[in-house]
Amino acid sequence: MKKLMVIGIGAGNPDYITMQAVKALNLVDVFFLMDKGQSKDKLIDLRREICERYISDPDYRFVEAHSPERERGDVDYKASVDDLNLAKQLTFERLINEEMSDGQCGGFLVWGDPALYDSTIRILQAILASGRCVFEFDVIPGITSVQALAAQHKVPLNRIGRSIEITTGRRLAAGQVSEADSLVVMLDAEDSYHQVTDQETEIYWGAYLGTPDEILISGKLKDVADEIERVRKAARLANGWIMDTYLLRKP
Amino acid sequence: MKKLMVIGIGAGNPDYITMQAVKALNLVDVFFLMDKGQSKDKLIDLRREICERYISDPDYRFVEAHSPERERGDVDYKASVDDLNLAKQLTFERLINEEMSDGQCGGFLVWGDPALYDSTIRILQAILASGRCVFEFDVIPGITSVQALAAQHKVPLNRIGRSIEITTGRRLAAGQVSEADSLVVMLDAEDSYHQVTDQETEIYWGAYLGTPDEILISGKLKDVADEIERVRKAARLANGWIMDTYLLRKP
Repeated sequence: MKKLMVIGIGAGNPDYITMQAVKALNLVDVFFLMDKGQSKDKLIDLRREICERYISDPDYRFVEAHSPERERGDVDYKASVDDLNLAKQLTFERLINEEMSDGQCGGFLVWGDPALYDSTIRILQAILASGRCVFEFDVIPGITSVQALAAQHKVPLNRIGRSIEITTGRRLAAGQVSEADSLVVMLDAEDSYHQVTDQETEIYWGAYLGTPDEILISGKLKDVADEIERVRKAARLANGWIMDTYLLRKP
Repeated sequence: MKKLMVIGIGAGNPDYITMQAVKALNLVDVFFLMDKGQSKDKLIDLRREICERYISDPDYRFVEAHSPERERGDVDYKASVDDLNLAKQLTFERLINEEMSDGQCGGFLVWGDPALYDSTIRILQAILASGRCVFEFDVIPGITSVQALAAQHKVPLNRIGRSIEITTGRRLAAGQVSEADSLVVMLDAEDSYHQVTDQETEIYWGAYLGTPDEILISGKLKDVADEIERVRKAARLANGWIMDTYLLRKP
């Protein structure tokens, strides 16, 4: 039997890694690196650094695979994601079939937590359900950028006894959010916080969380929204990419 | 200046602790143990075990403090929580004033993540805002039971591109939840999943997550809701306490 480990390595700071993740890293024979886009090189370097730092026996190897990308522009979002996931399934199957022998352990290093806005678990479950490929897999949770955001701003995510919604910039921009008074927005490429009508709403924004490049800004939207847009644009230009997230709290 | 560390120690499994938390543990001179209720002894033992396992120099001490409890029964929930938080502020102030000298570091070990349904950050911010007591503090994020739940069931928390609501059993029972198709319920003492009308909803339930006593049940509500209630009741009776959480996913 082949074994796969889907390992959450936390959000940026190598110290966010858990003891459980360190134990899992040390079981892996081959790591599959699937990064894509502009942040690719930086993120692959960080993964290699994590392996060097935490693995005692350097008897492991990396396989880099081209990660299929979603079709952008004027396409149906759900359909383009479905296409992407099928392409990813085929890529993963090839890696498992060609790069691992029986009894070996393969590892996927996932930024943040594999359960939150990451497709690895879904892809592996789909492959198992198809019956085309047999393996066991484990999931190791990791510190998400949501948690890093709250810790660095030193704020709770929830109000007393209230709920939290975690959603995407796309849904916020489309008005598809609930009445939750604490709203965490991830994957926002479009400064969607400008769509919030109540300008007394407080925003806790963070970019490159947990890394030396970390930027934190907080305040009422009316006071800091333009500053965030400006800082965000400049940082993306300077670094070639940006990863950011924010908490919106109703007044 | 006195320094406080609010350290998330993860949900149950001592291996959930992060490298950052281990470094923080090793800076602490005095740990404040605030547990209450039926799970008290077990949870204090687990905290001591974590300190023994991860702290190199045993030059630290524990101070146990009686943690004020919320008034139960027929009282206004918000007011009873406000009263409780004020009582907690006074307790924390006494600990900081009487049990720490200048330049020392005090530690609070929080199950899960300090930003999620925990009052420590809110209490410390309130004390600082009052000006009655001066200190610095840091927050160290930890793996929550929500993440342990998803990892152990090997499921993502969100559907593709959709949102997640994290809420309480109290709000679910009162019908105060949004239309989010993924709903994580914490702090449910009343089997509130029975209130969900669509019996095709899938539930992923877990108790004592990350510990040797862990129990996992999943399936459609119509198939497993009664089983969860039965197992939950028996486990609470056997252990004297229960900590559980669940994910509800609409069909």
